[in-house]
Amino acid sequence: MSQTSDTPLLDTVNLPADLRKLAPEQLRQLADELRTEMISAVGTTGGHLGSGLGVVELTVAIHYVFNTPDDKLIWDVGHQAYPHKILTGRRDRIRTLRQGGGLSGFTKRSESEYDPFGAAHSSTSISAALGFAIANKLQNQPGKGIAVIGDGAMSAGMAYEAMNNATEAGNRLVVILNDNDMSIAPPVGGLSAYLAKIVSSRPFLELREVARKISRKLPEPLHIAARKTDEFARGMAMGGTLFEELGFYYVGPIDGHNLDHLIPVLENVRDAAEGPCLIHVVTQKGKGYAPAEASADKYHGVQKFDVITGEQVKAPAKAPAYQNVFGETLAKLAESDPKICAITAAMPSGTGVDKFAKAHPTRSFDVGIAEQHAVTFAAGLAAQGMRPFAAIYSTFLQRAFDQVVHDVAIQNLPVRFAIDRAGLVGADGATHAGSFDITYLATLPNMVVMAAADEAELVHMTYTAACHDSGPIAFRYPRGNGIGVPLPEVPQRLEIGKGRIVREGTKVALLSLGTRLAEALKAAEVLEAKGLSTTVADLRFAKPLDTDLIRRLMASHEVVVTVEEGSIGGLGAHVLTMASDEGLLDAGLKIRTLRLPDSFQDHDNPDKQYDEAGLNAPQIVDTVLKALRHNSAGVEEARA
Amino acid sequence: MSQTSDTPLLDTVNLPADLRKLAPEQLRQLADELRTEMISAVGTTGGHLGSGLGVVELTVAIHYVFNTPDDKLIWDVGHQAYPHKILTGRRDRIRTLRQGGGLSGFTKRSESEYDPFGAAHSSTSISAALGFAIANKLQNQPGKGIAVIGDGAMSAGMAYEAMNNATEAGNRLVVILNDNDMSIAPPVGGLSAYLAKIVSSRPFLELREVARKISRKLPEPLHIAARKTDEFARGMAMGGTLFEELGFYYVGPIDGHNLDHLIPVLENVRDAAEGPCLIHVVTQKGKGYAPAEASADKYHGVQKFDVITGEQVKAPAKAPAYQNVFGETLAKLAESDPKICAITAAMPSGTGVDKFAKAHPTRSFDVGIAEQHAVTFAAGLAAQGMRPFAAIYSTFLQRAFDQVVHDVAIQNLPVRFAIDRAGLVGADGATHAGSFDITYLATLPNMVVMAAADEAELVHMTYTAACHDSGPIAFRYPRGNGIGVPLPEVPQRLEIGKGRIVREGTKVALLSLGTRLAEALKAAEVLEAKGLSTTVADLRFAKPLDTDLIRRLMASHEVVVTVEEGSIGGLGAHVLTMASDEGLLDAGLKIRTLRLPDSFQDHDNPDKQYDEAGLNAPQIVDTVLKALRHNSAGVEEARA
Repeated sequence: MSQTSDTPLLDTVNLPADLRKLAPEQLRQLADELRTEMISAVGTTGGHLGSGLGVVELTVAIHYVFNTPDDKLIWDVGHQAYPHKILTGRRDRIRTLRQGGGLSGFTKRSESEYDPFGAAHSSTSISAALGFAIANKLQNQPGKGIAVIGDGAMSAGMAYEAMNNATEAGNRLVVILNDNDMSIAPPVGGLSAYLAKIVSSRPFLELREVARKISRKLPEPLHIAARKTDEFARGMAMGGTLFEELGFYYVGPIDGHNLDHLIPVLENVRDAAEGPCLIHVVTQKGKGYAPAEASADKYHGVQKFDVITGEQVKAPAKAPAYQNVFGETLAKLAESDPKICAITAAMPSGTGVDKFAKAHPTRSFDVGIAEQHAVTFAAGLAAQGMRPFAAIYSTFLQRAFDQVVHDVAIQNLPVRFAIDRAGLVGADGATHAGSFDITYLATLPNMVVMAAADEAELVHMTYTAACHDSGPIAFRYPRGNGIGVPLPEVPQRLEIGKGRIVREGTKVALLSLGTRLAEALKAAEVLEAKGLSTTVADLRFAKPLDTDLIRRLMASHEVVVTVEEGSIGGLGAHVLTMASDEGLLDAGLKIRTLRLPDSFQDHDNPDKQYDEAGLNAPQIVDTVLKALRHNSAGVEEARA
Repeated sequence: MSQTSDTPLLDTVNLPADLRKLAPEQLRQLADELRTEMISAVGTTGGHLGSGLGVVELTVAIHYVFNTPDDKLIWDVGHQAYPHKILTGRRDRIRTLRQGGGLSGFTKRSESEYDPFGAAHSSTSISAALGFAIANKLQNQPGKGIAVIGDGAMSAGMAYEAMNNATEAGNRLVVILNDNDMSIAPPVGGLSAYLAKIVSSRPFLELREVARKISRKLPEPLHIAARKTDEFARGMAMGGTLFEELGFYYVGPIDGHNLDHLIPVLENVRDAAEGPCLIHVVTQKGKGYAPAEASADKYHGVQKFDVITGEQVKAPAKAPAYQNVFGETLAKLAESDPKICAITAAMPSGTGVDKFAKAHPTRSFDVGIAEQHAVTFAAGLAAQGMRPFAAIYSTFLQRAFDQVVHDVAIQNLPVRFAIDRAGLVGADGATHAGSFDITYLATLPNMVVMAAADEAELVHMTYTAACHDSGPIAFRYPRGNGIGVPLPEVPQRLEIGKGRIVREGTKVALLSLGTRLAEALKAAEVLEAKGLSTTVADLRFAKPLDTDLIRRLMASHEVVVTVEEGSIGGLGAHVLTMASDEGLLDAGLKIRTLRLPDSFQDHDNPDKQYDEAGLNAPQIVDTVLKALRHNSAGVEEARA
């Protein structure tokens, strides 16, 4: 283990059981060493830094006080769990974080019994903790459910739904609200203002006070309320905090970096609470590492960096990031179109909406982690004549699927969906992959679904979406940087449902959707060299399909292969369905559909992920050769 | 217009503009006549009765005070909007409610400019109203967004997400909380307890008081809070209600049947509010119709009924409803399996979970309108060793799609999804159709997707799901009653991924999934009579496919037709994909996929809907004949 000399106490702690043998006065040192170790590790691997630094003391305190893994500790989102991983038997692998075959950047059930519930999307922890708590109750087993959830994650409806059901669990549910006043971006909304008010208007809770409050054993807010009848009569406060109204016993605010306060508070809650508790802990994201504390985003997600200077190792970008191409294009279009507006759900910089917001602040809306609201809000804007762009990652748009169906598609409202992070996402792994959007959107009547083959296409599609007032339209594009093509001076309005031929051939037709086009072109070169004349089409639209083009290519080519970065049910399925509807398969056609595999792919570097998925040029070539029953040299084999 | 003599005042009101000409003292009579008319209409058509009766006065008051349609009035869920329809130019069609070609049972944009936003799924209204309000603000147009939302709908996270973003709209947003202490089932959760507390502990607001509160013009809760520093110091109330904490100015509770109170309160809010207002109105579901008031579900959804006696005209059931077969089967299985539990999201009787709850109350969970929480809560239960069944309508499971992906499928947790109302749903129309579940579930790795062909199959599938501990499993079944087959004494554990041959033939193979099996069998008879020997298979599984069976049938039949009650991307797409993957189409196969059309189908009687969808026996026959290029007599035509 590296840097042993810097972390003598941490070196003695492999599991929480070791931690619990320490004296309380040793925990400060342990926390300091844990912080050092974490900074060193993330300096090596890159990853989420600020969130983990903010919960170092909380991580130590929870494992010290609660009986993990029997008490089920669930880190909301999971990207703050690196210190937790170090303390739960994974220190020896902590420098493999987010690398292929290494530790996940989130919590993961298959990694450790100390990760009872994987996370990566926000705001699931209270629901899951309730599930564990109730399951233990039903099975007469000990064990609480403990959810640690950030203030940003509290803006999602799912967290509220869970809180609304909390009383069911009794004192088996502990929610620790980790209030660092920012998730990834600065906080928005009423809840955030409310939390800020509490923190600014109340001193941190004194120890004495916690002990007294808990030992009163009156967690039932109705009882408290009943004693306040005179206040009601005066039309004043309704008794207790928002959380108490929902049935929690609220404790806080507490300084989340002060172990002398944290430990006794958690012990009190563990031993004396008679109902579900919410402990409001205030922490500082990036705490204890000067470069992170000084940074605006608190080093939320970082590249590898120099531990001394904090300088991140950034590879020079070859081309602009897709998100910025989108954000800048939209900002430019909005200069001449006052109806364009943009909505993000707590991802202003991730989606490029920050670029739009800078130019058009009154037309930009960050609704917090609230994709459901984002989509229906956009539908309302569209119904009243605006041209809203809801910019949401593919994987997060899953949260608003019903709103896309019920509020947008059924009503045929012109909401524009800018779907970022479509397809595989490298180090973020399966939870963040945008695998399903083609399938779940193209199955909807009224929906138009495009995918950009490169950054220039993204410019055209953004403009095409802006022009499309007759119904909903979605366009997807991947994580990362473009491929370096020049950006068009003047965006082009694409004809809905029309693809383009990128290269002409006669024997093999590759029908590509999205950024796999580059690999399809590479594959075409290889096939051509083997004497197989190859057409490559960029279909642009998964829905409506360019049926004329597809019909023509099917009639004139011996093999047709679709290529998409999405799961079964998407482009390939739609092409096959159209072909069978029209009887184009009746007389025989060698047709194959390349798509994401029927498995969740772990984090890895993107190129390896594509190899695993079978979506790189060699696998495209291989598919064509197999369909032609040719061997790898391109020579026809004897039929079986 | 019928019954004119009973409704002299209502006869003078065709549109809200007519209503606004009336003197305030005439409104009581108008409300009474409106109630009479509504009871008469629903007696004729059946439909949602109790909810509409509860908001008669509110409907009159809102249209009297606000400037609809410029002020955008959005009825959450929309099933309480029958009085609204009568007052907004649709009285002449009110007796066509929910009939084919008639008025929708919900609000619908295409019906009237007074329905600015369609609804049917709950809890969308505040987001949509915010969209309208902000769009008007951006375009410098007058017009508020007014959401009328029930207390039950407030339990959904989406409503909370919207409330959390309300301040953005300023005084252009008005939320009217229609608190009738029940949605469809009795209310659950912390919010409900909170509302009950307000209502039980405070008298209805006096007029004087409202006027004074509003005219103080201090809607900003932060200001109010600032004046309460002394309270904070005493560690007492945090100042204001839950809604005030989120940024609303709260007014209430108000008697929602007292027009003398409602009108001035709404006028005050309209004229004097400086920020978003939430008006807490208390109503009684079923108000003013004795049989409804006396009924446990307040005549939520009714058949045609006798207006005098309230007796509903119920056709004698030929077979048990699918939901009850599920609920009773699960209850029985749970007698010998203590790990089985059931979760419903506010639909205990609709899903049959009430049957389970009666037998196993501690293992039954009604989480309120909170599908997201329901699914992740189930995932937590499963992770801790329980066997949870999440019983959710297909259309509502869309709300939890991300939770199905992220919390269940990625973690491969054995959550059982009992998917009711799969396929077309008759009078409830497009918003409630369960069209997409096969597609959005079968695209997920790890997921097993079954569909029951009849009520006996549903028994087997419920048991099969109970036995399936290795990962998630879903089984879908339709709205309505079974087909009358005997229920098995002993449920059978189906082999995962194996279908069954229901009848053997040689030329045509019909691959059915789900309850269209009966039509496939009818089609087979017709084909047989035309000399076309027909096999019918019930595939049972959309995922994993019975590849052996499909391969065999493809090899031995000239035409293969898949039949499913779902949209593109489902069974047909999976069969085609498997066939193309394996090269089974290379040499030619007449394969067709029958599925729901690429359009949202309006409400109608189910058989007509199936005809429109092309999923009845005649269309199956037609598809086969066309594929064979035979004419309708079954005789082969000359090829073109």
